[in-house]
Amino acid sequence: MKRIGIIRVLSTADEELLNSHGRLLHEFIGHPDLVVVSRCIEGHPQGLWNREEGQRAIPKIVNLGQEMARRDGVAALLVSCVADPGVPELREAVSIPVIGAGSASAAMALTLGRPVGALGIIDRALPPVAEVLGPRLVGWETPTGVRTTVDLMSEEGKERFAQAGERLKERGARVILLACTGFSTIRIATFLEEQLRVPVIDPVISAGLIAWYVAKEHDGADT
Amino acid sequence: MKRIGIIRVLSTADEELLNSHGRLLHEFIGHPDLVVVSRCIEGHPQGLWNREEGQRAIPKIVNLGQEMARRDGVAALLVSCVADPGVPELREAVSIPVIGAGSASAAMALTLGRPVGALGIIDRALPPVAEVLGPRLVGWETPTGVRTTVDLMSEEGKERFAQAGERLKERGARVILLACTGFSTIRIATFLEEQLRVPVIDPVISAGLIAWYVAKEHDGADT
Repeated sequence: MKRIGIIRVLSTADEELLNSHGRLLHEFIGHPDLVVVSRCIEGHPQGLWNREEGQRAIPKIVNLGQEMARRDGVAALLVSCVADPGVPELREAVSIPVIGAGSASAAMALTLGRPVGALGIIDRALPPVAEVLGPRLVGWETPTGVRTTVDLMSEEGKERFAQAGERLKERGARVILLACTGFSTIRIATFLEEQLRVPVIDPVISAGLIAWYVAKEHDGADT
Repeated sequence: MKRIGIIRVLSTADEELLNSHGRLLHEFIGHPDLVVVSRCIEGHPQGLWNREEGQRAIPKIVNLGQEMARRDGVAALLVSCVADPGVPELREAVSIPVIGAGSASAAMALTLGRPVGALGIIDRALPPVAEVLGPRLVGWETPTGVRTTVDLMSEEGKERFAQAGERLKERGARVILLACTGFSTIRIATFLEEQLRVPVIDPVISAGLIAWYVAKEHDGADT
């Protein structure tokens, strides 16, 4: 068995929503030995929508990660937010590998050797993405008029998403990085790939693949 | 089906050896939809053991990659050498994603956020690894007295390999990158991980995972 822990930074009691990123990994990887445990921090029902919310969440992410390493027996932790909140701090607190969705998906995009355009929900480049990509990051766009991931689920929202992708292509992007894990929840990558005809990197799947790779195999019975 | 093409830079008529990196991917990924096609360039029976051999191989790698994209129907190409020979040139020649084992495995190591030590067979840091890791690369070591991967398969060779890993740990490395795809052929990663107790990144598996992720699904019958 390979146990991966996903830390969600969106507080929810809805099991379906809580486990949505884990399901995505199960569907993509499809390996019978994969076990994904998802837990969320408390007190952030809107997610981490600005820097202050992100700062406030750090000690909660560290505590939850420590607890998951100890109690859930996970062999790698994935912080499922492209801002990588609490990732450096959690790495100091646990011995298992800690993967941030932002730096990991940016590294995945980097391996294609192409100019990268990022699609975000907030209109500034997030530091983990900018740091990994450096001059390879040729643009950062947000879909016009879209405020929440709910807006994106309408036909009009999807259209606006594709338009933002086209703007990135005009700036030279030849791979699109989805710079918000909410975009993984609504599973927009395949639609965009068909529209834009360039590779689209999903942050949860790409970071999850890396977590799966670095998680050490655990031979004992799965409890 | 997802078809990945592996370009081997070691010329061989031995099907077992030719397909060894593909087998490694099949065993790790274990997905029924994965198809790996391996082909090698001609005229390099010792592999690319110095810069001149690497330069001489570039047009052959480009030609072979173009042929595989056209005739084998692969949706991503992996150049299975940590020096990434011909990777920039091949990217200009084909439209599908091209992954270099060097830059890809270095990007994978980078995502752990730890100081990286590289174990190579030649005693200089290879540019694709140095470029991706920057100051995160804290050391580059070769196993003492080991000239070929055959030497590494003896008990003494494995011991020397572990010693080189210990030297990297003394320099602060907390993840080890195997900087030669010959080390994937002999499957040394698990042994080293047990000895060194830090994550050990295998270049073929990590680059192969990325190739698998970016390869577009192909719904037609597999021929």
